[in-house]
Amino acid sequence: MPRVCKAHFFGIKIITCFSLSFKCFRRNQSLHGPSPVTTFGPKACMLQNPHAVMHIQDPASQRLTWNKPPKSVLVVKKIQDASLLQPFKELCVFLTEQKNMIVYVESKVLADTAIAGDESFGAVIQKFCTFREDLDDISNRVDFIICLGGDGTLLYASSLFQESVPPVMAFHLGSLGFLTPFKFDTYQSQVTQIIEGNTAIILRSRLRVRVVKKGIIMTNGDSEGSRKSMQYQVLNEVVVDRGPSSYLSNVDLFLDGHLITTVQGDGVIVSTPTGSTAYAVAAGASMIHPNVPAIMITPICPHSLSFRPIVVPAGVELKIMLSRDARNTAWVSFDGRKRQEICHGDSITITTSCFPVPSICFRDPVNDWFESLSQCLHWNVRKKQNYLSSEEEEF
Amino acid sequence: MPRVCKAHFFGIKIITCFSLSFKCFRRNQSLHGPSPVTTFGPKACMLQNPHAVMHIQDPASQRLTWNKPPKSVLVVKKIQDASLLQPFKELCVFLTEQKNMIVYVESKVLADTAIAGDESFGAVIQKFCTFREDLDDISNRVDFIICLGGDGTLLYASSLFQESVPPVMAFHLGSLGFLTPFKFDTYQSQVTQIIEGNTAIILRSRLRVRVVKKGIIMTNGDSEGSRKSMQYQVLNEVVVDRGPSSYLSNVDLFLDGHLITTVQGDGVIVSTPTGSTAYAVAAGASMIHPNVPAIMITPICPHSLSFRPIVVPAGVELKIMLSRDARNTAWVSFDGRKRQEICHGDSITITTSCFPVPSICFRDPVNDWFESLSQCLHWNVRKKQNYLSSEEEEF
Amino acid sequence: MPRVCKAHFFGIKIITCFSLSFKCFRRNQSLHGPSPVTTFGPKACMLQNPHAVMHIQDPASQRLTWNKPPKSVLVVKKIQDASLLQPFKELCVFLTEQKNMIVYVESKVLADTAIAGDESFGAVIQKFCTFREDLDDISNRVDFIICLGGDGTLLYASSLFQESVPPVMAFHLGSLGFLTPFKFDTYQSQVTQIIEGNTAIILRSRLRVRVVKKGIIMTNGDSEGSRKSMQYQVLNEVVVDRGPSSYLSNVDLFLDGHLITTVQGDGVIVSTPTGSTAYAVAAGASMIHPNVPAIMITPICPHSLSFRPIVVPAGVELKIMLSRDARNTAWVSFDGRKRQEICHGDSITITTSCFPVPSICFRDPVNDWFESLSQCLHWNVRKKQNYLSSEEEEF
Amino acid sequence: MPRVCKAHFFGIKIITCFSLSFKCFRRNQSLHGPSPVTTFGPKACMLQNPHAVMHIQDPASQRLTWNKPPKSVLVVKKIQDASLLQPFKELCVFLTEQKNMIVYVESKVLADTAIAGDESFGAVIQKFCTFREDLDDISNRVDFIICLGGDGTLLYASSLFQESVPPVMAFHLGSLGFLTPFKFDTYQSQVTQIIEGNTAIILRSRLRVRVVKKGIIMTNGDSEGSRKSMQYQVLNEVVVDRGPSSYLSNVDLFLDGHLITTVQGDGVIVSTPTGSTAYAVAAGASMIHPNVPAIMITPICPHSLSFRPIVVPAGVELKIMLSRDARNTAWVSFDGRKRQEICHGDSITITTSCFPVPSICFRDPVNDWFESLSQCLHWNVRKKQNYLSSEEEEF
Repeated sequence: MPRVCKAHFFGIKIITCFSLSFKCFRRNQSLHGPSPVTTFGPKACMLQNPHAVMHIQDPASQRLTWNKPPKSVLVVKKIQDASLLQPFKELCVFLTEQKNMIVYVESKVLADTAIAGDESFGAVIQKFCTFREDLDDISNRVDFIICLGGDGTLLYASSLFQESVPPVMAFHLGSLGFLTPFKFDTYQSQVTQIIEGNTAIILRSRLRVRVVKKGIIMTNGDSEGSRKSMQYQVLNEVVVDRGPSSYLSNVDLFLDGHLITTVQGDGVIVSTPTGSTAYAVAAGASMIHPNVPAIMITPICPHSLSFRPIVVPAGVELKIMLSRDARNTAWVSFDGRKRQEICHGDSITITTSCFPVPSICFRDPVNDWFESLSQCLHWNVRKKQNYLSSEEEEF
Repeated sequence: MPRVCKAHFFGIKIITCFSLSFKCFRRNQSLHGPSPVTTFGPKACMLQNPHAVMHIQDPASQRLTWNKPPKSVLVVKKIQDASLLQPFKELCVFLTEQKNMIVYVESKVLADTAIAGDESFGAVIQKFCTFREDLDDISNRVDFIICLGGDGTLLYASSLFQESVPPVMAFHLGSLGFLTPFKFDTYQSQVTQIIEGNTAIILRSRLRVRVVKKGIIMTNGDSEGSRKSMQYQVLNEVVVDRGPSSYLSNVDLFLDGHLITTVQGDGVIVSTPTGSTAYAVAAGASMIHPNVPAIMITPICPHSLSFRPIVVPAGVELKIMLSRDARNTAWVSFDGRKRQEICHGDSITITTSCFPVPSICFRDPVNDWFESLSQCLHWNVRKKQNYLSSEEEEF
Repeated sequence: MPRVCKAHFFGIKIITCFSLSFKCFRRNQSLHGPSPVTTFGPKACMLQNPHAVMHIQDPASQRLTWNKPPKSVLVVKKIQDASLLQPFKELCVFLTEQKNMIVYVESKVLADTAIAGDESFGAVIQKFCTFREDLDDISNRVDFIICLGGDGTLLYASSLFQESVPPVMAFHLGSLGFLTPFKFDTYQSQVTQIIEGNTAIILRSRLRVRVVKKGIIMTNGDSEGSRKSMQYQVLNEVVVDRGPSSYLSNVDLFLDGHLITTVQGDGVIVSTPTGSTAYAVAAGASMIHPNVPAIMITPICPHSLSFRPIVVPAGVELKIMLSRDARNTAWVSFDGRKRQEICHGDSITITTSCFPVPSICFRDPVNDWFESLSQCLHWNVRKKQNYLSSEEEEF
Repeated sequence: MPRVCKAHFFGIKIITCFSLSFKCFRRNQSLHGPSPVTTFGPKACMLQNPHAVMHIQDPASQRLTWNKPPKSVLVVKKIQDASLLQPFKELCVFLTEQKNMIVYVESKVLADTAIAGDESFGAVIQKFCTFREDLDDISNRVDFIICLGGDGTLLYASSLFQESVPPVMAFHLGSLGFLTPFKFDTYQSQVTQIIEGNTAIILRSRLRVRVVKKGIIMTNGDSEGSRKSMQYQVLNEVVVDRGPSSYLSNVDLFLDGHLITTVQGDGVIVSTPTGSTAYAVAAGASMIHPNVPAIMITPICPHSLSFRPIVVPAGVELKIMLSRDARNTAWVSFDGRKRQEICHGDSITITTSCFPVPSICFRDPVNDWFESLSQCLHWNVRKKQNYLSSEEEEF
């Protein structure tokens, strides 16, 4: 159990003590960085603006607690994967019978004959609450989420919650994922511990994306009110690309209302730090720890050799539109889903959402991340060998 | 003059209004990002930890003011550059005679015969306060800094102030630099405006670097107390490389006490966001806006193909040491200065400093940055041409 | 006129002299490289294999000549580009009336009302030979090709000739292209000179691509003979990508019959050296001079961080097929044209064609290439500035 | 034993048959690429220039033979590596006593006390021929070379032979190297087979580098004759960098006498295809198969974002000099050795050497290369995972 041992508030240092895997760990570093001294030499200082002060809890100290014991749990299972059936059944039995929780499961998961046809599982299924994606809203009924499968299960869970997201615990069944740090072996003790509260969490920022489609003129000639607007929350990235066309997309990128550049190439990826290790890294981006408040902009196969990816502060507002001289439409997708065409006049507006995904850490935000860099991307895994070796090795 | 028009504090949005180049500009976005909602579904929330809460002023609203009118000004001039002589003299005359300020100049600047020998300038020189680098401490005597020359002048100015740094206004004389946004043409009105106060500033974070050198065992066998420790503040980067050796450096990189990887290659760059557009970008890094609270780690010609640069939160503590099996020493430098050898047992500890450089903006933190990306790095400057053009163009 | 001044044949050196832009230029370097000495120390040598000896003319000395004066010329014009109309008309009048040549033009070029409706041009049009793409074969009737427009015109011209290609002279009307080195201003003297013969040419290698589509089983159950095979000659590249799907392509790459790797990502580009500066460079490839006998393999946004592009010898045979476990089809295109789906069992076989495109140089193969690198890709165009500048610049 | 089965010489195809690891393998692809058809349409053709025709043996068919049985063998052993002692002794006993060969060993190898002090080895040592690097010329006395250790042993062996190089067989003792394909386990049968002749070889091209140092003016004012010229053969690369200086190097790069670009950055690497997988790949180069006749030019941390590596034909002549406005000297090294300073007026001239290193293949030039890409660089080794996985996986 974490106890604050000492807090020294000399403007800079925050000394906290919290339990990391059974031991008391003393940090004198915030994951956000020290508050900067805001007097500059003998006479200058920052103009005080109380309305612009933000109160931020140091990401390194973020831990989960419960106002009331969680009663309902959404179990997300990758479908059509036979290896997940047994763990899924075991977990549901455990949650229902040992923990007396109400289990929510999507209808199509239960449609699998290997589940529907399993008589021994029938009694458990009876107790499930089921729902259908896009039809039933469960966003206020779920206290806790458990994912079984790859990173895709967590992206899917995120898409079900357009506002506040319940805490998510994600198990990988095969190899470690960026978003699925837990091993299933000891699921009982791990789930129990989380339900008891006080576990390290990382708030994975999402992007709020609004797509405004310019209306098509109606038969009565009236295009007023025909604009259609949709909103999405993405955990990894928004991708704008050339879609089925073999020709370059040509889109303008605005930041806080200013045109900053035109993207000519296969497309552009706007990603969260979480998404920096997904599609963006394949397109050449640097990898950003999820606790950095930032948005990454990465071109896909840009025509210009100097179009390096950039990282901008979390709070900016980005807008993407087809360039005036674009000869083709573009396509947009959200965490790889809901793919749709973007035509002249349509706009995609992107900023950091205030509804992050609270993802439960296996160890802590730093160790989990480096573990997944190494496991998922083989980051700096190498053979020890000297290439400039001749003289050093005495030939 | 900025006036707050409206502040809506629903936890998320901060609407401020401030004047940017003669017009009132309404933002509803913070440069830091929205405060995340910290209740997660119906029953979970973040464990409150008042000792770990930080109060941060939104970077987008940061402006400079003066407690008292500035009286002393340090003028930093690149030496041995004839083109700077006339502007330097003009500026000093203006500051001394029009503004009644005390001008500090480094002794070696005045050693230039083109200055020392200029009789018409003699009267002004008489009024200067001079100092010698590393010998005279002026850190508490300077209210304001003006730089004339390239980015190097600002790196140099930064090195003079190991703690609080007075506001810096930097002129480029030739082409725009990342750190030198002002043109000299209208220096009089620009300097006047800044002395009057209320200008946009960007706090460029620095890294605090501590080098601990393991003592060499004395002839009496006593190595106690022989550790030598030095501290530096860097604005761009700390570079650890192989120095004059033609063999690979082999250094271990620790983050908050954990070994995260071993760097095998030409070296490693630990940079601020400001430094991400300097040496780091040449080594393949993405470019980070200076308002993102982060530290960038970039390998130099790494032996491993998968050693992509990473971006970690501003508050972590990094430590670099020679690997146990390193057969060569390494070399470290700080903003390209104070180059020194690192031997087995020595350590370099790096974290975000709480003494940023308050750099006066020409326009604002966002526009200045994109302008310099384009001017200094030709970022995404390109010929408009379609490479996948055949069918589209109807050949 | 080129004259061989001296040829010293000591196995290694080839000294030739040829005129490059009005001056006699003495080379003692072949563009292919010296013939290697094939005795190895006192007793070893290469096993002689007369059947495997190839006779190659040094690319640096390659010049065009005519067996008979050219009589027919194909003029390729980008359509729907008004700026090309006047030059097109001028050129056709010149070729028809001054040079007494037969001009071939594609029917759809003449369909443009700005051409069809121009009465003053009518007499010239009368003399044209017209043809329709994919319907009329003109490959044995054209002595010479002139392109007007962007690089796409030359890709199109290449596609018309599946075997031997007549010499191509390509004009850019706006900005220089990689494949269009000639300016239109002095077209008369330039065309005249080429018709007279003896101009520098570069043989741009093409890839011969064979697509074999596994037959769909017929209603009578008979799939014998249902394999369909198509062949293409590409000048830039073959692209295999995920097409309209948003999911990763997963294709196996074979070299001379061996599986060398599986591509997991957006796709893969197999390009000629000519194509290395087109789509491949956008995907991260190094740029290869067209005289290097090689094939470049470049992944598009590969999932693996270590999947660097590779360059293999011109003569290898590559084969691409969907991986056994690929869950989606892939799509293939040829110089951006003829896009088609690739399903399980289909194969794409690629090797260097023996029918290169003889492209007439503006100056010579080396200077033309570096000129286009600089003009088209801003290769190493930079602001002169030192980033490690502090001490050097004396701050 | 290879037998030519059929040779069809229709200008294009060369069908040869040769034995690859005990089986007859039919190729219809040359590793060089097909001879291009040199008639272009009905009337054009290439100007015949018999003096510029080169006769090249298809690299895919290159095999080693012996004029006379080899009698002397140079054994190169990495020194100060205890794990190599036993294999070294075994090998030397085998060569001396079983094969009756004269073994050449460098004096300093025998200076190792573990060798000099081994009495049981004394009788064998007696029969050795010893030599000292840079003092004794053994280039005409060695029929065959065997390397034991890492890639460095082969670079060292290469440096001993400035002209014709005897065949090299290289054993890796630990992990596979790019240049050391043989495992030591079955060294007896493998060495025997090679001595019998007829094994696949790859001719690894080298670069001939000439350094001309402008003489310092003598006290008598006479600088005539003071130019000093040195020549080197490099197997991997020539590196020009900033050496111990922390400031940018600034060098001009000429190709066949024309200034093509100025390198501003940490330096530049000019490498063979063999060297493309060494230092160049760490600096961002694509990887080139050693049978491609090319030279790779790779900038090291260039200041310009658009300075992508380039690949030029094997035969060009490159020259590197300090730029007129360079404020620092540069340093040059050759395969990591013989590091020296380059001052204003000095020049480094580089071209493909006609003395390649005949390196004996373990399997064949293609398979050996892909095996080493995978083993040494983890090329495209990856976890199978879909990053765009959400919908595809049905979440």
